[in-house]
Amino acid sequence: MEKLKPQLKAPTLLVNLDIVASNIARMKNKADASSTRLQPHFKTHQSLDIAKAFAAQGVTACTVSSVKMAQYFASGGWNQIHLAMPLLAFQKDEVNHIAQNCALSCNVSRLQHLDDLMGFSVDGVYIDIDTGYGRTGIRVDDKEAISDMIQAVERSSIALKGLYCHNGASYGCNGSSDVLSNHENSLSSIRALKKSLGLSLPIMYGDTPGTSLANDFNGIDTVSAGNYAFYDLMQWQLGSCKLEDIAVCMACPIIEKNESQQTVVVHGGAVHFSKDALNSDGKKVFGKAVALNYDEWETGFNGELISISQEHGTVRLDAKSFHNAQIGDFIGILPVHSCLTADAMDGYLSTTGASLSSL
Amino acid sequence: MEKLKPQLKAPTLLVNLDIVASNIARMKNKADASSTRLQPHFKTHQSLDIAKAFAAQGVTACTVSSVKMAQYFASGGWNQIHLAMPLLAFQKDEVNHIAQNCALSCNVSRLQHLDDLMGFSVDGVYIDIDTGYGRTGIRVDDKEAISDMIQAVERSSIALKGLYCHNGASYGCNGSSDVLSNHENSLSSIRALKKSLGLSLPIMYGDTPGTSLANDFNGIDTVSAGNYAFYDLMQWQLGSCKLEDIAVCMACPIIEKNESQQTVVVHGGAVHFSKDALNSDGKKVFGKAVALNYDEWETGFNGELISISQEHGTVRLDAKSFHNAQIGDFIGILPVHSCLTADAMDGYLSTTGASLSSL
Repeated sequence: MEKLKPQLKAPTLLVNLDIVASNIARMKNKADASSTRLQPHFKTHQSLDIAKAFAAQGVTACTVSSVKMAQYFASGGWNQIHLAMPLLAFQKDEVNHIAQNCALSCNVSRLQHLDDLMGFSVDGVYIDIDTGYGRTGIRVDDKEAISDMIQAVERSSIALKGLYCHNGASYGCNGSSDVLSNHENSLSSIRALKKSLGLSLPIMYGDTPGTSLANDFNGIDTVSAGNYAFYDLMQWQLGSCKLEDIAVCMACPIIEKNESQQTVVVHGGAVHFSKDALNSDGKKVFGKAVALNYDEWETGFNGELISISQEHGTVRLDAKSFHNAQIGDFIGILPVHSCLTADAMDGYLSTTGASLSSL
Repeated sequence: MEKLKPQLKAPTLLVNLDIVASNIARMKNKADASSTRLQPHFKTHQSLDIAKAFAAQGVTACTVSSVKMAQYFASGGWNQIHLAMPLLAFQKDEVNHIAQNCALSCNVSRLQHLDDLMGFSVDGVYIDIDTGYGRTGIRVDDKEAISDMIQAVERSSIALKGLYCHNGASYGCNGSSDVLSNHENSLSSIRALKKSLGLSLPIMYGDTPGTSLANDFNGIDTVSAGNYAFYDLMQWQLGSCKLEDIAVCMACPIIEKNESQQTVVVHGGAVHFSKDALNSDGKKVFGKAVALNYDEWETGFNGELISISQEHGTVRLDAKSFHNAQIGDFIGILPVHSCLTADAMDGYLSTTGASLSSL
């Protein structure tokens, strides 16, 4: 941290680009072995600078979840973008502007979504399939609705690109074997759907827990997961990653020490971390503390972020770390959910000292 | 909403400035009756445009919780600002730059905070007193430490402005009578402290639940609460406000309908609302849905935001509202915690159609 210290004036989201590159390489190697393409979800980092780490490994297409993100990445030269949601009629002008220099696809899951695309210059649509998450998409067992949707797209002037599935149910799993069996069930249900309908449509699929733990990507044409660039404590708890795979860490200054509780108060709260929490023996944990050491953070925990208000957080440190902690020192806190933390912040500081911008 | 409809292209935080003005007036009248000054916390709105609503009622000073906010409001002409936290040695250059055109005060709660202010051009300090919240400050019953701190400030070249107390414990209360008794206990403990030390120091005090429910501000010289400009569902549940006092409402477009669950999926998720939740019979509620009607929102609820992911939320609507809901329609969602919601968004749209900027 000595090297970075002069750049730390406030809560700062550090990113280790070596870890990012290694996380991407692990996924890319698995994808290459299954002849699967990566079209990573960039909502995790929302940064053209971080996107370069994907481009450096041959990734040329990305996924986003808002028109605003599509605008941002298209303006930075990304010319194949999947908007993983349906588009609404009032978004036509904005979307067509983006589509001038970008092949833009989106999701549909009902006839009205298709009707609303009248006049949109989209490159094609994916039909959103729900294998159990229950948020959006046509239920995988509703063959009639899926079949009707396919026929409607085929009758329209819009290209059918394939089936899309975000199996967010994996986030509710209890450890890695549960994630893996959930992943297998989800994929099997799509395979069964394709077989029963005699379909040869490509599958775009992605959730970070399932795709991180799966041995291969057989049956998946495109992986649209994205959190694996950074990972976080939630993924670590699910078994998707090792602790040393977490690529982001918030540096927060200590503003107060409470000797009787062995806690420190840091500048770093809900507006920096968001409020996702791990459940630790019935108590909420909003992040885990790690020592900052030169330009790196240590892998082992030395404390927990046990409560947060808007701008501040209370961290319970181990005895030695508490003893050494000084007002004005920066400590590291690994985030529970890196996507929300990254969104809350205005960019990153790489551990090599570079400022990286974000949307 | 017809009037605003052309301006709605994405999740948009609506603000009703008439409600803001009336919320401020209620607090200002009570303050005037007790010869108490308002120095509202602007972390709630972080907006020079919203700040004008305070200025219009004679408020000339504000409170903030980060150096960044102090920079922002000072650059907009606010020249008396309390930074409700200790300052750290490395913030000297930034703070002194702000202090060129602004009387800036801060909190101290230990000798090192005072030592670290060496070379800072601050207008003075408040000693942070903890009446039970337990986050920062010297415990109100630790007379020795408070007395030592007072003497240390008096020996220094820095002016002692008074005692500061944020009684955040009120947020953990169960309804309005609990808030009021907690407020009375907190204030009584400060009165007892002043009496036992023979102090005549001014008291800066503020939490929105306590100051909203108290009949008067006797014993308080300056009220630093700020959430009362907007209020939210958390304040409503605590009894601090009526439903019609909530001044902000997120307009979110419907992207999907789920007939079997009577739910709609909206664009509007954790990056818009943050993840603070009400507890409703053991289930989390992230916001309450209201109908948008011309340029206003209806006061009665017609649904609940029952789950949120990064960009999207699932809203359970009542039968009639669900029946009428159309893909592409905007529905209103009252936030659980308006401070975090406002921080997550990039400004506001007033119900009269004006775009209001924020930090």
